[in-house]
Amino acid sequence: MKNIICPGFIAGGIASGIKKNGKHDLGLIYTIKEASVAGVFTKNKVKAAPVILDMQRIPSGICKAVVVNSGNANCCTGEKGFKDAVKMSHAAASMLDISDDMVLVSSTGVIGEPFPVEKIINAMPDLVKSSNVNGFYNFAKAIMTTDKVVKIVSKKETIDNKTFTITGVAKGSGMIRPDMATMLCFVCTDVKADSDMLKHSLLVANEKSFNVITVDGDTSTNDMVILMANGESGASISNASDKKKFQTVLDDVLLSLAKMVVKDGEGANKLVEVEVKNAVSDKQARQIADTVANSNLVKTAIFGEDANWGRILAAAGRAEALIEPYKTDIYFDNILMVKNGQGCGALAEEKVSRILKKTEYKIIIDLHMGQGSASYYTCDFSFEYVKINADYRS
Amino acid sequence: MKNIICPGFIAGGIASGIKKNGKHDLGLIYTIKEASVAGVFTKNKVKAAPVILDMQRIPSGICKAVVVNSGNANCCTGEKGFKDAVKMSHAAASMLDISDDMVLVSSTGVIGEPFPVEKIINAMPDLVKSSNVNGFYNFAKAIMTTDKVVKIVSKKETIDNKTFTITGVAKGSGMIRPDMATMLCFVCTDVKADSDMLKHSLLVANEKSFNVITVDGDTSTNDMVILMANGESGASISNASDKKKFQTVLDDVLLSLAKMVVKDGEGANKLVEVEVKNAVSDKQARQIADTVANSNLVKTAIFGEDANWGRILAAAGRAEALIEPYKTDIYFDNILMVKNGQGCGALAEEKVSRILKKTEYKIIIDLHMGQGSASYYTCDFSFEYVKINADYRS
Repeated sequence: MKNIICPGFIAGGIASGIKKNGKHDLGLIYTIKEASVAGVFTKNKVKAAPVILDMQRIPSGICKAVVVNSGNANCCTGEKGFKDAVKMSHAAASMLDISDDMVLVSSTGVIGEPFPVEKIINAMPDLVKSSNVNGFYNFAKAIMTTDKVVKIVSKKETIDNKTFTITGVAKGSGMIRPDMATMLCFVCTDVKADSDMLKHSLLVANEKSFNVITVDGDTSTNDMVILMANGESGASISNASDKKKFQTVLDDVLLSLAKMVVKDGEGANKLVEVEVKNAVSDKQARQIADTVANSNLVKTAIFGEDANWGRILAAAGRAEALIEPYKTDIYFDNILMVKNGQGCGALAEEKVSRILKKTEYKIIIDLHMGQGSASYYTCDFSFEYVKINADYRS
Repeated sequence: MKNIICPGFIAGGIASGIKKNGKHDLGLIYTIKEASVAGVFTKNKVKAAPVILDMQRIPSGICKAVVVNSGNANCCTGEKGFKDAVKMSHAAASMLDISDDMVLVSSTGVIGEPFPVEKIINAMPDLVKSSNVNGFYNFAKAIMTTDKVVKIVSKKETIDNKTFTITGVAKGSGMIRPDMATMLCFVCTDVKADSDMLKHSLLVANEKSFNVITVDGDTSTNDMVILMANGESGASISNASDKKKFQTVLDDVLLSLAKMVVKDGEGANKLVEVEVKNAVSDKQARQIADTVANSNLVKTAIFGEDANWGRILAAAGRAEALIEPYKTDIYFDNILMVKNGQGCGALAEEKVSRILKKTEYKIIIDLHMGQGSASYYTCDFSFEYVKINADYRS
């Protein structure tokens, strides 16, 4: 993981002093050639200053650098917070000798604390100096908050005999729910593509990854996914087949990162896929998967390794979607536990109990009503989640 | 609490053997004169057998008895479960010498287990024999599941020099969220009123009580609130002023019971009112109060006694309602913590920290946008909640 690169990009991460424990808290990604760029941002109406700034800058479709801090979200910080975000971008731009509007900024951490921009400005020379082609690992460390593991994924594919790379870095382990949520993800690729194409591919991949995961049902003020393409590989996306190849790799990178986020969910021990089949529509399948994946009662039962399928059915029943309880089947992996809304008895439960002890498994809800389907990814809800979030600020 | 009565009603509760620990699990309320009746039921599409049966019977507007068991929800039990609910009502009707359709039934407990109707039938003679005018306390014990405290409230008021009583009994401590949820409530009154009037009064009171509380955001398959009026007091509701008097007392009884449910929420240590003021509309205020009151991050911060107001603002920002973060103020009781979307500093936080140590307080979110308002009641989210729900069935 420490040797992951993306051709034409340099990256780095250092400790600027924002985190009291002296851990990495400031990161940079810089592209040697100007990159096309696309981004998706939180839909929360409370948006952090860096989100507001990036949403102004990203329509230009080009960028040269992203600078990110952890430990402070620069959110609910008023006019000063916005000016600080501009200053943060300016500090990087000066050192890199590029214009301010070629720099995107991103922050994650506590909301509502004064933003320590001076620490960032002071640390910028060291950050730029220490960045290099192998710096993605340090960058990934610098954007972590309650994350326990570094999240980097890199994949290669070939177009026209030219090999391209997609390297993605993510952070996030709490406040995670569809429509992103304290989730930052920065994806670098050396394909050649314009920003409109990137935007479309990013929306598609995001919908199937970061928008179908949940840890605690809360969403954040700071989420963003940024995709940069600098063309370094010479591989150019010029037709539908190339685009499909690129999309497949991008989907793979984002879904891998999204699963890493759920698996590293605050206090999580399990990664569970909730698949809803044969709903009236995909949208309704999604509603049900969302409601089940976010149910605290389902998530505590997953933690307790308890085959309490009644909670799954009850959660499905309160989703805003059509369901006929007496037609509904529920599987755990390949074991049928509920047939036509009724339990399949002690033998099935015995088999399901063994599945529940695994760290990864699947809950399948078959509605037998139509053709709609959807998958969500969730984790268990543990003592540790409560512990982490009861004293996050202290 | 053991001496609470409601004139013209007898009640009782015994152990029938459904609960393995030998605690009370079967209760009865019987009215000597035929009562007018109204009910509200869960909106969950997965409805337990007794809910389905009562929804068929209640349109008659009259009833003589309610029989309730805890320890098994008789839900997801198929055709047999429905027949068992009918048998349960028949067992009571036979002993009381009334017709089956004058008996309502209710169940609460685990979903999807075979329903032990024989135990109920066998215990019915003892239940009827042991019921008496002072039996509400035993009834209240018989309907408890994870509840730690008995929930009974009784109030008196006078119409036309005649004193009437409203006595309510409730259960519920998990799976609680607006639109009710593993919440059972039985309200007896000796006023004289027709079932249409009762229904209207019940909907009004329910909207301001059981529909604005949350423990864990999950809703149940078995919820119901039943209101019976037997006219025993001779106090008759004949004009708008009488109706208003009755409504005020009913509102008071239901809100008191609803608060008792939140306070006894699984693992709960705090009762917190979330009041949203000056939203664009009451409906939008409700959306925001609902989202904040159900946020796991807010609820774990309440548990941790952490003035993490950023989470409150972030939860408000993801509600489906208009909010201008830069206009929003947040108070804890009477202390202004957030002004125009920004924190009020260390002194305010110091004062708020003291409020957070209390077992009951209020969070006020003032949006400064319109005239809409709403209040929700929530509790903290603790280790104990996870513990209770991880091994509920074992």
